Amino acid sequence: MGPHVKTDMKPYFKKIAILGVGLIGGSLAIDCRKKKLAGSIAGFGRNEGNLKKAVSLGVIDAYDLKVEKVVDGADLVVLAVPVGSYLKTVKAFLPRLSPDAIVTDVGSVKEKVVKELEPLLGGRKFVPAHPVAGREKSGVEAALPDLFKGARCILTPTDNTDPASLEKIKNLWKEVGAVVSCLSPAEHDEVLGMVSHLPHLIAFALVNTVLGMAEKKENLISYSGGGFRDFTRIGASSPEMWKDIFLTNRENMLSHIEKYEAVLGRLKKYILDRDEAGLLREFEKSKKIRGSLN
Amino acid sequence: MGPHVKTDMKPYFKKIAILGVGLIGGSLAIDCRKKKLAGSIAGFGRNEGNLKKAVSLGVIDAYDLKVEKVVDGADLVVLAVPVGSYLKTVKAFLPRLSPDAIVTDVGSVKEKVVKELEPLLGGRKFVPAHPVAGREKSGVEAALPDLFKGARCILTPTDNTDPASLEKIKNLWKEVGAVVSCLSPAEHDEVLGMVSHLPHLIAFALVNTVLGMAEKKENLISYSGGGFRDFTRIGASSPEMWKDIFLTNRENMLSHIEKYEAVLGRLKKYILDRDEAGLLREFEKSKKIRGSLN
Repeated sequence: MGPHVKTDMKPYFKKIAILGVGLIGGSLAIDCRKKKLAGSIAGFGRNEGNLKKAVSLGVIDAYDLKVEKVVDGADLVVLAVPVGSYLKTVKAFLPRLSPDAIVTDVGSVKEKVVKELEPLLGGRKFVPAHPVAGREKSGVEAALPDLFKGARCILTPTDNTDPASLEKIKNLWKEVGAVVSCLSPAEHDEVLGMVSHLPHLIAFALVNTVLGMAEKKENLISYSGGGFRDFTRIGASSPEMWKDIFLTNRENMLSHIEKYEAVLGRLKKYILDRDEAGLLREFEKSKKIRGSLN
Repeated sequence: MGPHVKTDMKPYFKKIAILGVGLIGGSLAIDCRKKKLAGSIAGFGRNEGNLKKAVSLGVIDAYDLKVEKVVDGADLVVLAVPVGSYLKTVKAFLPRLSPDAIVTDVGSVKEKVVKELEPLLGGRKFVPAHPVAGREKSGVEAALPDLFKGARCILTPTDNTDPASLEKIKNLWKEVGAVVSCLSPAEHDEVLGMVSHLPHLIAFALVNTVLGMAEKKENLISYSGGGFRDFTRIGASSPEMWKDIFLTNRENMLSHIEKYEAVLGRLKKYILDRDEAGLLREFEKSKKIRGSLN
């Protein structure tokens, strides 16, 4: 491959507008600068302290508390605010969105988002995306270079998605190291509801069960070396973000929780019945998964 | 402190019998050798291949498939087989146990163990112990030096426990780096049932829920970067060991599972009712715990 092929592949934007300069938006901005994918990067957010920090850390070039000013002149707009704030945010910047600009997002839920944003954005270029990367910390200070290296980025195009824009966003995520794949919005939400959203809900539930008991037993938490500690990382994730994810992916969540309750109920029944064979059978099953992950 | 004080503190055994040369038993043997706490270390187990490996790795000096031969002449006997095999194991070696030997264990459940072993051991010296350390791997190949460094070791003495033996076992665990504390057997089981056994059960349940869905969706597991992966480490723990733990700590497990089901049910209700404030309140609560762990 000659160098002109590489130039074709590597996307370039005159101005990227990052709406929500937190863990994901900030990390993407850092990589776009490092890889020289943008002429300039502007940030929008609600928290001016966070935006100032983002400028002083060199994550973004400039910021504004008015989203329409940040979007003005941008050829790429990245929605990285909590999913529950998408509609309000898009409505606010839409009148100033350049007709050629690509709008993309990084949200963890896709079906409802696509259903609401596609009609609102009309004929504009919208490429729904979900980089599957996260840490328990939030805010621009949690942003890292290479956060997406080796991580999955799932794009969920529809019949309305402009193929050239899809290609460009695909290349953007490839450039920052992500492994890109495509799913339908509905399939994305069902799959991620199971392997990401349900584990988070379960961790929140466990942490709060332990906290409930800790109110009566002061020293309880100090014994948490044996298994519980692994859950507290997840349990410390952003409350607002997860509230939005669970409510936006509501139907899948309700159905997945019921599947989980049935399995837990089965284990409980085996313990109640002192059914050694039943428990062994279940645990042998879960042991197998570890190998299949590598 | 003069050096003679240190000599007083450091326990020494002519012969340690490690019954069950797996992750915990093997790691303890490694540290006892390294710290010169034993004249010799002999191992018992069911799997001769594992015992041969233990000798060739230098973890133990010798082994036998007959437990009474391993215990013969030992002044410290460490029960490190699954909790469900304690009774059978003790009955087998008891006729050959030296009257002055200390028997201790490393099991994750204490109340039922103490209730059954104290009468069986009669006037012998028995110090129930639980080093809270673990990995998802098992067998002697998983054993590591310094596995207990900084980990908790909980002793659960009763009115029948010989004070000098308790002191000696306390010092043994201190020597290998553990932070030693005491709880009553009943309190141990209630506390560990919550912060260790319940998280493991929940992880097993989640892994099997995901596997249930994966039977229909082939590529499901490949999307597991986002939260699920953390659970699979726990889900890969020893099935036999955990089956024994859940059944031996049965009453606490049933009561803790019910507490957990109530919290999960509350979260589900909030999702069903689209109760943003309810979810936020729950997640803000669980976020606080992370700070209190450090």
